[in-house]
Amino acid sequence: MKHIEIVTIGNELLDGMIVNTNASYLCQQLKALGLTVSAYHAIPDERNVLKRLLKRTLLESSLVICTGGLGPTLDDNTRQVAAEIFDSGFRFDDGIAAALRERYGNDLASLHNQATVPAKAIVLPNSVGTAPALIFEGASVTLILLPGPPLEMHAIFEQSVIPYLQVRLPEIGKRVTEYLILAASREDEVDPVLRELQETLPNVDAGIYAKLGSLTIALSTFQEDAEARRELDQAKQVLMSRFPDRVVFTKRGKIEEDIQELLIKNNATLSTAESCTGGSIAAALTAQAGASQYFLGSVVAYSNEVKKRLLGVKQSTLDEHGAVSEEVVIEMARGALLATGSDYSVAVTGVAGPTGGSDKKPIGTVWLGVASRHGIALTWRLKVLHGDRAKIIAYTVNVALCRLWQTVNTF
Amino acid sequence: MKHIEIVTIGNELLDGMIVNTNASYLCQQLKALGLTVSAYHAIPDERNVLKRLLKRTLLESSLVICTGGLGPTLDDNTRQVAAEIFDSGFRFDDGIAAALRERYGNDLASLHNQATVPAKAIVLPNSVGTAPALIFEGASVTLILLPGPPLEMHAIFEQSVIPYLQVRLPEIGKRVTEYLILAASREDEVDPVLRELQETLPNVDAGIYAKLGSLTIALSTFQEDAEARRELDQAKQVLMSRFPDRVVFTKRGKIEEDIQELLIKNNATLSTAESCTGGSIAAALTAQAGASQYFLGSVVAYSNEVKKRLLGVKQSTLDEHGAVSEEVVIEMARGALLATGSDYSVAVTGVAGPTGGSDKKPIGTVWLGVASRHGIALTWRLKVLHGDRAKIIAYTVNVALCRLWQTVNTF
Repeated sequence: MKHIEIVTIGNELLDGMIVNTNASYLCQQLKALGLTVSAYHAIPDERNVLKRLLKRTLLESSLVICTGGLGPTLDDNTRQVAAEIFDSGFRFDDGIAAALRERYGNDLASLHNQATVPAKAIVLPNSVGTAPALIFEGASVTLILLPGPPLEMHAIFEQSVIPYLQVRLPEIGKRVTEYLILAASREDEVDPVLRELQETLPNVDAGIYAKLGSLTIALSTFQEDAEARRELDQAKQVLMSRFPDRVVFTKRGKIEEDIQELLIKNNATLSTAESCTGGSIAAALTAQAGASQYFLGSVVAYSNEVKKRLLGVKQSTLDEHGAVSEEVVIEMARGALLATGSDYSVAVTGVAGPTGGSDKKPIGTVWLGVASRHGIALTWRLKVLHGDRAKIIAYTVNVALCRLWQTVNTF
Repeated sequence: MKHIEIVTIGNELLDGMIVNTNASYLCQQLKALGLTVSAYHAIPDERNVLKRLLKRTLLESSLVICTGGLGPTLDDNTRQVAAEIFDSGFRFDDGIAAALRERYGNDLASLHNQATVPAKAIVLPNSVGTAPALIFEGASVTLILLPGPPLEMHAIFEQSVIPYLQVRLPEIGKRVTEYLILAASREDEVDPVLRELQETLPNVDAGIYAKLGSLTIALSTFQEDAEARRELDQAKQVLMSRFPDRVVFTKRGKIEEDIQELLIKNNATLSTAESCTGGSIAAALTAQAGASQYFLGSVVAYSNEVKKRLLGVKQSTLDEHGAVSEEVVIEMARGALLATGSDYSVAVTGVAGPTGGSDKKPIGTVWLGVASRHGIALTWRLKVLHGDRAKIIAYTVNVALCRLWQTVNTF
């Protein structure tokens, strides 16, 4: 049984400025490799704290992964501390330096610093930022140092660390992971089904990744084992039959990708009309490279005036039914089709709070609509209970994307 | 110097199913009390792992806060482990039992379990769920056990723990933190200045929190020390004089809050016109509670057709200068003012990549404009070099928010 610990480094983790997505990302990635993390830690940029914790975790673990503290600045101690523990000197890496010069030119102040690496470390280039990742191989333990910025860390982990681990820890075996998304589902509804699957299909490792408003089910098994692959297909079938109206087929668990692929395949265009989500649906969709091939634009109609001016929502509809109503969301969705000329549109209007709730329409009441040029207009009423503003918005975005995919995939 | 550690308990934390918001919430709350957390840990529901970690953190700390493992189920060990460490027996708490009966009736299966508490612990009632919080007071250390579900944990912390801490730890050296944001700045530009400050102003702790496109500088010192407070003011003066055109004054380092406060104070409204950012600027602003007091809406004009239809961008301007140009961003900003009737608008158009770049306008070229009803229209050309799509968008959003704040604050 491997003992794996993660050490996340950075003062910003401890003053509550950010949530620790690096730790959860690494836990998730390792789980997909069939590895379970035993513990993770968050500590400030203090070399003595880091050194003490690293020494202890290295003694107790077979794999330790650190994030943060690899930059060129004063409080970046990780390289130095790791080199001391592994009794390593430093060398100047011409390859890293050349790559940095190529990308940043000669005026990168931190070039010499970032290209100076521990002599005993394996160096993994950073294709996004400046700090390379480093691997120290001890007799019974491996230490992997990754940069803190998530974009850089993700790129290096997926490009270099996973292949490295598959060689270094052969007992992992190459694994394949397939994903399903379940719209508007709660963990406690799906968890019993997964427990069942784990008994009937022992070769399939199932993970639930709960987002507000959707669950991503990751089913992984051994790539080269035909029987295991059959079990994985069975597991998918079971989930599809248990939750028929909620399933979104997804390549990588990233529904924005699936929506883009589907609309481009159908040669169709999309727009959004957003009130309470404030542009978050459009932002999620356009975060994908190539979104301009199908996404035309969005009207974020926060005030009623803008709903009327840009989406043609009728004053009478607002008066009769209120801004948060099925009638208004349909006018918003149809208005987006007209305003942008798109084939499909998704619209939302709701009460995100913390004020503006009423007995009839409490905070968390959201109307969602999907319309098409051919006249279809489907609506859903969401009730996001016990949610603060951020939760209500995130929940609405995820459900909207799922329902959009399902509508385009069906009609 | 007091030492505070947080221990978050739960298997779900380690398989990547959730991000650890309990840890960041507690860090934030304690920071607001002038307390800085020294480290936090996430461990599974395993009694031996918990016992070992608790013993160590209790020896090293003056305050340890645990979340999770207080429920009635088999894998909830926290009460038992803490009682063993503090050599405490258990007692049945009639008050807790009565409160649970009142809320859940007599058929709450876990009632007896949840009302059985360590005899040596102070009991804090749980107004949301069933598990009460527990406090153990040692000679030199305090251990606080909180339930894991965030809604329960938040309620108990805010209702009972904060008042408790304010009485229990009056002797703690309270610290004050002030923030500055520097627009369009890189860590390696600012770090030398901070090194300098740490030598000349030893009482001031300086931290850089780098976001793409902006840096947040946190300057903290001892609250009650007049000399230290003077040093903190000097540090701010130095930064303002070194980076005069980049400074954003910020309450908590969250510029969306500062923009909202400034616009509401000026009784002014805002709209955005976004191309490459795809609604991310509007989404960032409307994530703030109360945004509807000043934010009217946004036109996400991804296609040129939408730029023309909804923002009145001229075909001739697009033909002459291209969609990514100063001329177009000004027409977009002015178009947003007209379309929404807002007092101010911010507009962006750029090449987010990975395709669409040219020699004249490489990927990462972004034009940013801020316009006001009174005729001002300021523009900036951003060059987000070496960035992928996500980086270019994030960078643009942060710079846009900084420049918007500076413009509204100046004109």
